[in-house]
Amino acid sequence: MPVDARDERLAALELLRGQFPRFEPGEVWLTGAGPGDPGLLTLDALAALLQADIVVHDALIDERVLSLARVDAQRLCVGKRGGRPSAAQADITQTLIALAKDRHRVLRLKGGDPFVFGRGGEEAVALVQAGINYRLIPGITSGLAALAAAGIPATMRGINQAIVFTTGHALPTNARTWSLLAQTGAPIVFYMGLNNLDAICGALLEGGMHSSTPAAIISAATSATQRVVTSILSDLTDAAMTSGIQGPAIVVVGEIVRVRNDLLALAADTITNAEAPCAG
Amino acid sequence: MPVDARDERLAALELLRGQFPRFEPGEVWLTGAGPGDPGLLTLDALAALLQADIVVHDALIDERVLSLARVDAQRLCVGKRGGRPSAAQADITQTLIALAKDRHRVLRLKGGDPFVFGRGGEEAVALVQAGINYRLIPGITSGLAALAAAGIPATMRGINQAIVFTTGHALPTNARTWSLLAQTGAPIVFYMGLNNLDAICGALLEGGMHSSTPAAIISAATSATQRVVTSILSDLTDAAMTSGIQGPAIVVVGEIVRVRNDLLALAADTITNAEAPCAG
Repeated sequence: MPVDARDERLAALELLRGQFPRFEPGEVWLTGAGPGDPGLLTLDALAALLQADIVVHDALIDERVLSLARVDAQRLCVGKRGGRPSAAQADITQTLIALAKDRHRVLRLKGGDPFVFGRGGEEAVALVQAGINYRLIPGITSGLAALAAAGIPATMRGINQAIVFTTGHALPTNARTWSLLAQTGAPIVFYMGLNNLDAICGALLEGGMHSSTPAAIISAATSATQRVVTSILSDLTDAAMTSGIQGPAIVVVGEIVRVRNDLLALAADTITNAEAPCAG
Repeated sequence: MPVDARDERLAALELLRGQFPRFEPGEVWLTGAGPGDPGLLTLDALAALLQADIVVHDALIDERVLSLARVDAQRLCVGKRGGRPSAAQADITQTLIALAKDRHRVLRLKGGDPFVFGRGGEEAVALVQAGINYRLIPGITSGLAALAAAGIPATMRGINQAIVFTTGHALPTNARTWSLLAQTGAPIVFYMGLNNLDAICGALLEGGMHSSTPAAIISAATSATQRVVTSILSDLTDAAMTSGIQGPAIVVVGEIVRVRNDLLALAADTITNAEAPCAG
């Protein structure tokens, strides 16, 4: 992009919100890209995209978001894609540090929120230890964005006073944690929940969660390929198989999923390829 | 604001992100204002502010955010302020419906995220039932924003694979839920946690959470008056009293609070009136 056009966009941002943070050479901005819809980017994330020299991003960042970066900015994808292994976390961290030491403005762009199941905490600690100046810019976390896009409030008076966010990665200890969480009665939101769905559902049933508890899988939330599959806990694995729904996906199990029925007028407006409402 | 200036800001938004959602008369946009810092507003929330005829907002919305609305937009505060009782939820809902039926563009602006402890679900269901077209725009939820602003990652590899969000309102059933949640070992984030801090800490200890578990209180996150107080579970109530910290506040209890020590270089950059790091 010619310098004039870049300046024009910075001027537009300043017109809209006044002073915005200036990205200095040698800094790393650890930034949440939100779920994908560029309308859910924060103004500070946009300021980061308009100023960064290089964008170090995960594989799942929406192209509509990446396209807001400076046209002359370098892009470096460090996430897994198409079965290729992802860069090791230590390598990513070293890359960020090296780029910052070379006096680049380094935008580390992560899906959702960097501090929620995104290893942002690890990267932040490593940057501090290396003496790199950095800024954290939160994003709309994928779990909440997916629920909202599916017409499912995270909390609803008369239904729940708590909600749990956890990862669906099948670490050995997690099944026991899932069973304990099930005993609290709070709805549970699983990030990356699709691969271990059978183990998740088993642990929740073992923890005493009722088999008829409504559940939903929300795939590629806020993107053009978003899909929502609803079912009940005991049938969720079958529903996932039958529908052929693919990751990245958020899985939510709890009575709040029923509210989607009441909000389907909204969902129909905002969801592409929405599935039938919860039958549970 | 003269029409020209309004058009200028809409043109700036379009330059930055291309097409944005058009606010039609008779619609209600249920919108998250985020924690207060206007840099954490979403682009869609800004689009809402630039177009709304009337802004129906909670008491705690940051003036820096409200000031982004059209100058000729009406403002209607429906939250509690200075001891006056808040408008009843049913009255708020009826107001939204009546304004929409009068063909206004109605922006319902809530702190944080409308679907997270914000009664947004209730308002959404009421709007659907009344046949009002509406849009939901998520915001950065206060709990996550407060943690981030205090330099506390919501999740950290090697520390936690789950996190719980709950309300600190002392409903009769909540103390039992807090004890159950304590048994999961996951960190717990309390919205509006300051008023019932003694009951909260008691329930967590009763649930088996260790008395030396680190904890933090984050008040007015991302505002100029933000404060952070850290302590350990058994001393948290005393620390709150001694510090004189005031609501609105987020309380977090869990090992993740320790990471703040490692990130304090960040915290010092971004936090006003930050307290000493966690001593636990």
